[in-house]
Amino acid sequence: MEAARERRDDEVEQGTVVTPSAEFPPLSPSQRAELGRIGERWRAPRADGDLPVDPALGRSDRRPVPTRFGRLAPFAMFTVEQPDELVATERANVPGSRFGRALTRLRRAVFGPPLSSTAVLYERMRKLVALPVLSSDLLSSVAYGPEAMLAVLVLAGTGALGLSLPLAAVLVVLMVAVGVSYRQTIQAYPHGAGSYVVAGDNLGSLAGLAAAAGLMVDYVLTVAVSVAAGVHAVTSALPGLTPATVPLGVLVIAVLLAGNLRGVRTAGNIFVLPTYAFVVAVLAVLVVGYARAAGRGFAPVSPPPVPAAEGLGLLLVLRAFSSGAVSMTGIEAVSNAVPAFRPSEWRNARTTLGWMVFLLVLLFAGLTGLIRLEGLVPLPGETMLSQLGRVTFPSGPWYPLLQAATTLILLLAANTAFNGFPRLLFFMARAGHAPRRFLHMGDRLAFSNGMAALAVAAALVFVAFGGHTASLIPLYAVGVFLAFTLSQAGMVVRWRRRRGPGWRRRLAINAIGAVLSALVLITAAVAKFSEGAWVVVVAVPLLVLLFQRIHRHYATLHHALALRPPAPAPPAPAPPGPAGSAEGEELPQEVRHLVVVPVARLNRASLRALAYAASLGQPTLAVHIAPEEAEADRFREQWQAWGDHLRLETIVSPYRAFVGPLAHYLEALHTTRPELTLTVIVPEVVLRRPWHRPLHSRVEQRLRAALRALPGVVVTSVPVHVAE
Amino acid sequence: MEAARERRDDEVEQGTVVTPSAEFPPLSPSQRAELGRIGERWRAPRADGDLPVDPALGRSDRRPVPTRFGRLAPFAMFTVEQPDELVATERANVPGSRFGRALTRLRRAVFGPPLSSTAVLYERMRKLVALPVLSSDLLSSVAYGPEAMLAVLVLAGTGALGLSLPLAAVLVVLMVAVGVSYRQTIQAYPHGAGSYVVAGDNLGSLAGLAAAAGLMVDYVLTVAVSVAAGVHAVTSALPGLTPATVPLGVLVIAVLLAGNLRGVRTAGNIFVLPTYAFVVAVLAVLVVGYARAAGRGFAPVSPPPVPAAEGLGLLLVLRAFSSGAVSMTGIEAVSNAVPAFRPSEWRNARTTLGWMVFLLVLLFAGLTGLIRLEGLVPLPGETMLSQLGRVTFPSGPWYPLLQAATTLILLLAANTAFNGFPRLLFFMARAGHAPRRFLHMGDRLAFSNGMAALAVAAALVFVAFGGHTASLIPLYAVGVFLAFTLSQAGMVVRWRRRRGPGWRRRLAINAIGAVLSALVLITAAVAKFSEGAWVVVVAVPLLVLLFQRIHRHYATLHHALALRPPAPAPPAPAPPGPAGSAEGEELPQEVRHLVVVPVARLNRASLRALAYAASLGQPTLAVHIAPEEAEADRFREQWQAWGDHLRLETIVSPYRAFVGPLAHYLEALHTTRPELTLTVIVPEVVLRRPWHRPLHSRVEQRLRAALRALPGVVVTSVPVHVAE
Repeated sequence: MEAARERRDDEVEQGTVVTPSAEFPPLSPSQRAELGRIGERWRAPRADGDLPVDPALGRSDRRPVPTRFGRLAPFAMFTVEQPDELVATERANVPGSRFGRALTRLRRAVFGPPLSSTAVLYERMRKLVALPVLSSDLLSSVAYGPEAMLAVLVLAGTGALGLSLPLAAVLVVLMVAVGVSYRQTIQAYPHGAGSYVVAGDNLGSLAGLAAAAGLMVDYVLTVAVSVAAGVHAVTSALPGLTPATVPLGVLVIAVLLAGNLRGVRTAGNIFVLPTYAFVVAVLAVLVVGYARAAGRGFAPVSPPPVPAAEGLGLLLVLRAFSSGAVSMTGIEAVSNAVPAFRPSEWRNARTTLGWMVFLLVLLFAGLTGLIRLEGLVPLPGETMLSQLGRVTFPSGPWYPLLQAATTLILLLAANTAFNGFPRLLFFMARAGHAPRRFLHMGDRLAFSNGMAALAVAAALVFVAFGGHTASLIPLYAVGVFLAFTLSQAGMVVRWRRRRGPGWRRRLAINAIGAVLSALVLITAAVAKFSEGAWVVVVAVPLLVLLFQRIHRHYATLHHALALRPPAPAPPAPAPPGPAGSAEGEELPQEVRHLVVVPVARLNRASLRALAYAASLGQPTLAVHIAPEEAEADRFREQWQAWGDHLRLETIVSPYRAFVGPLAHYLEALHTTRPELTLTVIVPEVVLRRPWHRPLHSRVEQRLRAALRALPGVVVTSVPVHVAE
Repeated sequence: MEAARERRDDEVEQGTVVTPSAEFPPLSPSQRAELGRIGERWRAPRADGDLPVDPALGRSDRRPVPTRFGRLAPFAMFTVEQPDELVATERANVPGSRFGRALTRLRRAVFGPPLSSTAVLYERMRKLVALPVLSSDLLSSVAYGPEAMLAVLVLAGTGALGLSLPLAAVLVVLMVAVGVSYRQTIQAYPHGAGSYVVAGDNLGSLAGLAAAAGLMVDYVLTVAVSVAAGVHAVTSALPGLTPATVPLGVLVIAVLLAGNLRGVRTAGNIFVLPTYAFVVAVLAVLVVGYARAAGRGFAPVSPPPVPAAEGLGLLLVLRAFSSGAVSMTGIEAVSNAVPAFRPSEWRNARTTLGWMVFLLVLLFAGLTGLIRLEGLVPLPGETMLSQLGRVTFPSGPWYPLLQAATTLILLLAANTAFNGFPRLLFFMARAGHAPRRFLHMGDRLAFSNGMAALAVAAALVFVAFGGHTASLIPLYAVGVFLAFTLSQAGMVVRWRRRRGPGWRRRLAINAIGAVLSALVLITAAVAKFSEGAWVVVVAVPLLVLLFQRIHRHYATLHHALALRPPAPAPPAPAPPGPAGSAEGEELPQEVRHLVVVPVARLNRASLRALAYAASLGQPTLAVHIAPEEAEADRFREQWQAWGDHLRLETIVSPYRAFVGPLAHYLEALHTTRPELTLTVIVPEVVLRRPWHRPLHSRVEQRLRAALRALPGVVVTSVPVHVAE
């Protein structure tokens, strides 16, 4: 479809830069040409001097008077930047109603004052800040990744724990392979190398949507798992808090949401300390632990005997492997955030990624080895990192510090999702795959709608699984490794197509990454299918279907609203088309008017509507709906007394309905002359107090709802304000 | 206030006839004169031949074509009765949407096809039908009245039961006195002698409202008590159903509501048999019972000894008396329904009332005496009428028949309230004391809104009191005797003022009724205050306050919308008034236009809105709100490409808000030139599928809400329909 291709062009042109203007995409060249052709045929004269008021508000010499219904409208709300342009000051955003103003004050107190669009450019990160901000998700997963692997192995008894070291070695190879593969992706996509973009760009829209669905599931689970693990770190240290796990977790998610709604920059600064603190704390555990082990000649402590609950089969090993693979979640963060780095963006991002993977391998391998050396086994009430901390630091402040740093980094890992999820939705929305509201940047230049959606989804998942990290882990790996696989497979296709210098080597690296990721994906999906992975296996296709339906809707809409060349003006009225040809014209000289004023009784409100209608100077018809003949006669008599200035049609509605007969009457008029634009002018009494509304029928609203479906019917509300 | 007096005149003129036209009250003479004066100054020419379509739809030679968005609009939906008048056929009431049509079909299946307004005249009753319809409330109360009295007396032990006969004698005197008093009221108010009308007419609005509040409480309690007693009659016969009391009662109320929504006539017919059956059944109990008693020489059976729980004090006797007085509830029914009789209405109504009171006295006195003779005492699990039935008819079908008739008449008594309550609300709404929606007659010529309100209130009370008759009785007498007292006191004032033939005798009769009712009222309120009567004592003043506030709102609104002479046209623009002088005019030549079109992007929808705006031929300004400077420049450039046919003002909104700055800008324009009528033309994309709406921002609706408060701002929606 041409419209879709045009939009595609726009996207490429705009790159992956996040801008508030994304809500107002530019016109494609063909649409622009159409616009000019329509403009040429426009016949209404432009009368510039005719405006009865200066639209720039500049030369006004009249002092503004506070109106009774509104509020003072000081001109200071707008400043004049250049001719024909005003700039709204911050005060112009405050709503007029008292309730609205109070709400705005509250919001600003919680989230801070609004940020101007121009501030968006300065939100760039240097490497030393980017590393903690983007790596908290990845590094924090060593807090639960080794444990997730051991918790599966121990099902086959203490003896099976020995498998942890070879499995860890395989995982380290995987981490390095995927890390190197992603380094290439970042270089190739300097404007943002998210799996959605890379897969969609090289493997087609469907693959991109599948990657996006996987990532979205992953982001939601990141928040849920990280918060669950963080709360577990707290309850390991303070077991008394265990019963409050669910409310605590929901509270943490709410606080994360509120903090993120304050904006990116504020959120970035609070990352630095806890992430480095966690790295230092875990490194301290490793150094002290291995030093102690070296003291006894690296002789492993034999673990307490645990009876085997299951046999040690291949499936169990695969389950353990894929559980350990959750340590790799979060590697995507850097590639999504390339444009957030300082220039040159891709090089800084690549360096940061290298450091991150190095730290990940170091912490993951070190912890797994030390756990083996100390002979620890998973316990239900306490995390393994906590056990390790207690063994390594039997006294002193180090153990509480380790737990505090773990808790904090896990919460910050959840925060990473608040960064990535809304950005992903933004890119999807810009391509028409997600609702457009996710394009909107809130007061604080953050994608508030996306953040709220993430918080709600994560809270639902968290509550549904009772905040148990172990129950959530099986769902985790599928989504993220789907995205990994598709992204790297996309890179393979890209190298084959473009064939730049050294493309064979690069292709090989990405292919290794893709194959390994695919193996983990299949392993995770099959081995943990019945433990919960089936939820993701079902959810991802459904999400892809939803995205496609959304895209189809927007594409149809885009096509329907696309500018088209006007048909040559027919000498006779056009034959009635199926869609109501009154909506065909975009030219003023082709609009044929009939103004219809429904009048229930003659009072100031209806006479004002009649006067407004007559002042438009178009053919006008008044309609009165009477419940019985006697009332119709009485009304006609009143109409005569008024002077019979407009043609009146009375409709007796013996069943006392008002909206139905009027809507059908208008439809009958429309059917008779489909080229007419019917303007229905409805007087509307505006009441000041909301609690007075139940005293009045909502006939205007019901009429508007009934007339919505009619093509070519314009509804005009003429308000009359009543002081009481 | 003059407006209030005028309305008063209308009411008197209209009498108490119930008509669907009450929603459209006629203009008062002064308003009519004003209308003529406004009409004389109207300057827009009437151009009859100009209408581009025949509004009578008559001479159309084009076959209607089904539209894509609506449905077939066959002209058969309207028939032409006389020139300039159409009559909507039944099909014209059916809504257009598929869901609406299904709902209509369902409603018609349950409640029957709609009734035409003309049918309202034929809903008159002859006496033999009126007696059962109107007396079921009154007569049914003998099913629980004597028991309510004895249940209090027995608290002082078996010995106190002997007081039942003298108390019954006093109650009989009271019944006769009130009955005779009401006979006079009916004669004096042949158009309906409800306490609200009589008290309001003679003692002032406050007394009328107090009587209305009392009656409303009474109607709600009638439903609750009757349903409770009816369910109790069932559970007396079938004790297994006792736990289901509350759901059974709510179900019965729902069935009553549904039945009544079908309309008055259908409801009337089902009254005849059960009421007569009940009277015959109770008379049979009395005849057989007294015959058996005569057989043993009228020697009373000594009741089983019951220990005294309280001392036999004056308060206890008064409580017993006021509990017995609930037998009189329902006497009001006839006086409310005078216009429902066949002519001559008042005479037939008076005769019917006489018969009713005679039957009441006969049944009440007979039952109380027989209970005493048989030595029965109140039992918690079984009604006294049931006990009496078991004693009188130990075998055979008579006992079940009695219980069935009792249950039926109690349910029908509840039904009486469904007749009276909405009529009362109708009269109150016509006088502006209740929400206007209670003026509306539904599909079936019944006051559906009032019926629904009654059913909801009664169900709430029933559930709140767990469906216990005994807990509800203390609340019962206060409201009804308040209405009795005020009504008869009003008659006393009336006789003193009018002094017709024999006024002294008539005054004396009404005065006796008033004094006796007042005594019962005070007795009930004081003696049963702590048992529940306080609820009514608190509720009645609150209701009166509510009615007054409602009336004040409508009066203010009526005054604000009243037609006023137009001010002489000023040569210079009028100075800005506080309420926005743009809403001052009712004359087309005084309307000064500025058309404002907010344009977000240039597509078919916005170009259509621009074309519509330009075609009106009024000064037009397009406004674009841009989130940042770059976007504003881009939009201006597109505007130039289109041809710059209309003046464009761009407003940069650096905080990315749209609705707030636009509303403030319009307010600023309005403040600069308050006499301008600003017409804001909003393009609105109408989606066919409701589930597509979440994909779009509701910016039109939010804009409309923000602009509601601005005086002189007309909002016009120009729809573009999208097929998908």
